[in-house]
Amino acid sequence: MGILVVGTVALDSVETPFGHVDRALGGSATHFTAAASFLTPVAIVGVVGEDFPHAELDFLRQRKVDLSGLETLPGKTFHWKGRYGFDLNSAETLATDLNVLTQFSPKIPKNLRESEFVFLANIHPALQIQVLEQIVRPKLVALDTMNFWIQGEPDLLRKVMARVNLVVINEGEARQFTGEASLLKAARQIQKLGPRIVIIKQGEYGALLFYEQEIFSAPGLPLESVKDPTGAGDSFAGGMMGYLSRVGQVDLKTLCQAIIVGSSMASYNVEDFSCHRLKTLTLPEIVSRINQFKKLSHFEEITL
Amino acid sequence: MGILVVGTVALDSVETPFGHVDRALGGSATHFTAAASFLTPVAIVGVVGEDFPHAELDFLRQRKVDLSGLETLPGKTFHWKGRYGFDLNSAETLATDLNVLTQFSPKIPKNLRESEFVFLANIHPALQIQVLEQIVRPKLVALDTMNFWIQGEPDLLRKVMARVNLVVINEGEARQFTGEASLLKAARQIQKLGPRIVIIKQGEYGALLFYEQEIFSAPGLPLESVKDPTGAGDSFAGGMMGYLSRVGQVDLKTLCQAIIVGSSMASYNVEDFSCHRLKTLTLPEIVSRINQFKKLSHFEEITL
Repeated sequence: MGILVVGTVALDSVETPFGHVDRALGGSATHFTAAASFLTPVAIVGVVGEDFPHAELDFLRQRKVDLSGLETLPGKTFHWKGRYGFDLNSAETLATDLNVLTQFSPKIPKNLRESEFVFLANIHPALQIQVLEQIVRPKLVALDTMNFWIQGEPDLLRKVMARVNLVVINEGEARQFTGEASLLKAARQIQKLGPRIVIIKQGEYGALLFYEQEIFSAPGLPLESVKDPTGAGDSFAGGMMGYLSRVGQVDLKTLCQAIIVGSSMASYNVEDFSCHRLKTLTLPEIVSRINQFKKLSHFEEITL
Repeated sequence: MGILVVGTVALDSVETPFGHVDRALGGSATHFTAAASFLTPVAIVGVVGEDFPHAELDFLRQRKVDLSGLETLPGKTFHWKGRYGFDLNSAETLATDLNVLTQFSPKIPKNLRESEFVFLANIHPALQIQVLEQIVRPKLVALDTMNFWIQGEPDLLRKVMARVNLVVINEGEARQFTGEASLLKAARQIQKLGPRIVIIKQGEYGALLFYEQEIFSAPGLPLESVKDPTGAGDSFAGGMMGYLSRVGQVDLKTLCQAIIVGSSMASYNVEDFSCHRLKTLTLPEIVSRINQFKKLSHFEEITL
């Protein structure tokens, strides 16, 4: 059981209309793990620089996250600087300092090579392939990506996708990657590459699951205040994969539930900057939000 | 029982990446009625010019729609010309020829003044007020509007809203009208004006219902091919109001169901230009689409 996640551990400087943080804990693997660790054992493989404040990860250590695969290399930690406007739906990148990330070559510790659930967070598809080469008999491998790789490495990306079971992707990126305006057609096209499962993230509107021929739509919970959407997609994936790993099954029923758990995690994550909200979150709070999602989308039988 | 709808009956020239029509049947009251008439008796009050091809409304006559309140005035019918791009989410208006609409002053026939359900489709708020002055003891009055009136007549619009029970509005227009980025806050602000019920349309993403303190989210059904989104909001409102009128109740349970019925109607309406799809639609098809919506949003109990 448990999840292996390979992705970035970063320091983020983020500005939104509701405040800002400077070099706060961020990165795809971090946000993913902050969510997944509520539900299942997680191990991170990633890299940080000598400047990285390791105490910032204490909340993950308390949740028994395995950090043995987190390398420290000479140099500075990956740093992303971005700004969100009024509608919070898209970030303007002000700076991307890759730093030690340019030397990153994921080495999966021996004891993690047989992880049943593997999440390839948003990193260079060549590194994602390196991970695939090292893992043995996984039950489920999922992949996230972004516009940068879709534009720069589309062929390589197609090759990695062909080797995973599940692709998580933004709606805009799904359209960009496939050239299809219809998300249904876009998902079908990605499924044709190999993955049986495609999950399209729609930001504040929720998420769509395409599982073989079936479709499920998770609503977006209308929130009073969203402070910072950074990491929403990763905490969504963390909640989703965390639930799959906890249940130990990957079928339509469990996937639908998993997407609701992921949506609940993401809805908390955006309520504060960095991982602040997920640091203090409790299991009863997660359960309460899941119940909100249930109420939000439930309707009685209709007879005409 | 039954619905009185006051709005436009128009000729639309529409171009999308999937085709075009020239002076085809359109207008808010028309699209609304094409949907509502499957579910409940409907009466239209509106105006057309001498050029209007009355035979185009035969399909509504066959559904027993009361057209006695549809005036013909000297001059030409209201004509809208618009174009949609690749993503179909927003129209570019190429021409708005108001024609006889400038002389429109809604006169509600005596036998319709006691209609239980009244829909004030998107027209000048001053005309919407004129309708309110003529109706007696309605069970539910609903109102739709658009950015043009929000910008040009915000005070008058606020006055009409204060006198209705239900406001249907696009998400962009809800944000524009209230100045709130959060749809939850926007809905609460509109509720404070008077209406207990606010429904925010989110295009391909579905719709949100705010009923007193409760919230319901209807998903958007991912469609293979959307040809023309014109009238989607009106057919949504028609299905929604049609169901409320059919059941004869306005409570949370019925409203949630009504929004699903409305979403089903809208999902058919966008599959073809003008009212083409709703002309040939059948009740079994509507039921089948409603079942798709059920499946789309249903998930099993989650225990953590």
